[in-house]
Amino acid sequence: MTPPIRGFAKSEFGVRTQRAQAKMAKKGLTALLLTTEPEVRYYTGFLTRFWESPTRPWFVVVPPIGNPIAVIPSIGAHLMGQTWITDIRTWQAPDYDDDGIKLLAQTLREVTPLRGKIGLADEMESHVQMPLASLRAIETMLDGRALIGDGGITRDLRLVKSDAEVDKIRTAAQIADRAFDRVPEIARAGAPLSKVFRDFQAQCLNEGADWVPYLAGAADRGGYNDVISPATDAPLRQGDILMLDTGLVWDGYFCDFDRNFSIGTPNAATQSAQAQLIDATHAAFELAKPGAVISDLFHAMNGVINPSGKTMEAGRLGHGLGMQLTEWPSIIARDHTVLVEGMVLTLEPSVNLSGEKIMVHEENIVIREHGAEFLSTPQKGQVRIAG
Amino acid sequence: MTPPIRGFAKSEFGVRTQRAQAKMAKKGLTALLLTTEPEVRYYTGFLTRFWESPTRPWFVVVPPIGNPIAVIPSIGAHLMGQTWITDIRTWQAPDYDDDGIKLLAQTLREVTPLRGKIGLADEMESHVQMPLASLRAIETMLDGRALIGDGGITRDLRLVKSDAEVDKIRTAAQIADRAFDRVPEIARAGAPLSKVFRDFQAQCLNEGADWVPYLAGAADRGGYNDVISPATDAPLRQGDILMLDTGLVWDGYFCDFDRNFSIGTPNAATQSAQAQLIDATHAAFELAKPGAVISDLFHAMNGVINPSGKTMEAGRLGHGLGMQLTEWPSIIARDHTVLVEGMVLTLEPSVNLSGEKIMVHEENIVIREHGAEFLSTPQKGQVRIAG
Repeated sequence: MTPPIRGFAKSEFGVRTQRAQAKMAKKGLTALLLTTEPEVRYYTGFLTRFWESPTRPWFVVVPPIGNPIAVIPSIGAHLMGQTWITDIRTWQAPDYDDDGIKLLAQTLREVTPLRGKIGLADEMESHVQMPLASLRAIETMLDGRALIGDGGITRDLRLVKSDAEVDKIRTAAQIADRAFDRVPEIARAGAPLSKVFRDFQAQCLNEGADWVPYLAGAADRGGYNDVISPATDAPLRQGDILMLDTGLVWDGYFCDFDRNFSIGTPNAATQSAQAQLIDATHAAFELAKPGAVISDLFHAMNGVINPSGKTMEAGRLGHGLGMQLTEWPSIIARDHTVLVEGMVLTLEPSVNLSGEKIMVHEENIVIREHGAEFLSTPQKGQVRIAG
Repeated sequence: MTPPIRGFAKSEFGVRTQRAQAKMAKKGLTALLLTTEPEVRYYTGFLTRFWESPTRPWFVVVPPIGNPIAVIPSIGAHLMGQTWITDIRTWQAPDYDDDGIKLLAQTLREVTPLRGKIGLADEMESHVQMPLASLRAIETMLDGRALIGDGGITRDLRLVKSDAEVDKIRTAAQIADRAFDRVPEIARAGAPLSKVFRDFQAQCLNEGADWVPYLAGAADRGGYNDVISPATDAPLRQGDILMLDTGLVWDGYFCDFDRNFSIGTPNAATQSAQAQLIDATHAAFELAKPGAVISDLFHAMNGVINPSGKTMEAGRLGHGLGMQLTEWPSIIARDHTVLVEGMVLTLEPSVNLSGEKIMVHEENIVIREHGAEFLSTPQKGQVRIAG
């Protein structure tokens, strides 16, 4: 129950940087330009909830050799100065005339030779976290250097977690386990769903979450229609199935799993659906070993929950997990990523019930040398009874 | 204490759309392409915490006449179907071969004449929430239609809040008021700062917050160094000044203000700094009427806190507030936005203390016909005593 130490050894950031630089050399890239929270944090350790403010852009440049360079608003200089980064270049943002653009372009020109290629994440699940006009301006200020796709360098590195990263995700999952165990204290007929959401988040915090960026869920008879809606003020009713799906954070790392609860005794259809969902996660869990591919996990789960091969609205049966609630890859038939030790995944099957209702179940696992290990405490066969 | 009704009348979304279309016509734009959470929500009412997942892109197209069109992953179809939007086009995301790109390009071609101009937010505080490679692909699929900057259309509309929006922000601020009143229950010498952060977030939830996307703060002797750091596990000490700055959400709208607390009796320097900060917010408050400009507020505050005109690391003394923790504009000397009724702002002065320490104070206001009105309950002159 004692959480691990916060932060990382400086050497971990050095290893991440050197691995990126080796991949950059192979791809002919002379720098990486990072603009989003997880990319910046991955190489620097810069952890703050201040990204909630969209005002100021933040940049990190990974040069071909040497340590990353931070090009950031002065408001972040003190916090960045507590990381392993020593080359910190700041401007006083927001600056309506030049919000860091000249400073960033100058830094890119400095570390990149003429005709060099600067890599920027441009593939699925990525975006560029700066104004489009700024990006277009920078492209004109590079004196012939090109800004091109990074070929997934950072995405591929983040896919495989270190032991220290896995420990943080496990800590988050254990906090959620304890909060889910306490749902019977707050979920009963008559309680507004919005109050259950508030109380559950407070339980997550009381059990040790640093914050609770994500909670979704639903409550309805014989399943629910939707897994991404916010809570309404409608009260829980006898016979409802309540689903709570949380992504809480400990030291910057997420868990992401859900649990289904019955308000009163569950009916046979929902019990059977829950059993099927659990069977599906175990079918994937058994196959989740180094050398297997993601599509194996998809087919193992889909064979249990969806033998007819119907279209699924969710679009996938799980995904990567770490510094973000959802990460690369997606557990779909089209994904042939080979599993290696250190990957962290969610297994998230869903089943269709009558009346367009669904039920969803989710567990978190890590791939180890000889097979998978649960990070969430895997649920047993029955729908939990809450109210 | 009874919160207002959740959601908005459908007519409010119609008015927002028609206002955008009038501005589009003036600027010669034949469509808007929206990609970020606040833009999509502003025109549709689509409210979900699912944006925490970066996997799937979400698009809304505002045509030159008629209602917005949603081009979204099928997982969101049910929730979008509960808004006023009826033209909802979906694909099963994630699709590694075409993640909505053809469907979006087809929709843009359909609503926009040949050689039409499609506006995309590209200025400060904005970004494009889709993979850069997808954006570049779409540009090649528009048969001569251009994707250009939107000239700040959505930003300018969002700047002025409706009464219903102001009511939601006020509700959020009143929840934070009550949570701040209860800080003495949780902050005392020996309590780890990380536990104070957890407990404070739980108090926000208990007082009615839907969620707490933002909490930053610090605790140190005679002020603090930083206002964006996450909490450490270090215990509060007698003589510390504790600052908590929260952006909590009610029905999709933020408050954003802080309070300073003393663990034990505050010293004269921090008392004097607090008084100066409060004087600064009142100096700006008095001027905050329709017809005044943002730089007036800056100079009013800066004259109180910074008569020597020293460089400020924070870069600004407040900002807009609404669907996001921070919104356009920034309270800086360079901003000459004219205040109009319905703008919601934070007033956020900071002062320098000895030893590179600072103190920050923040209130939330709305501009009314004859002057400003506080949304947060304005703090009186003294540092609050917590522990």
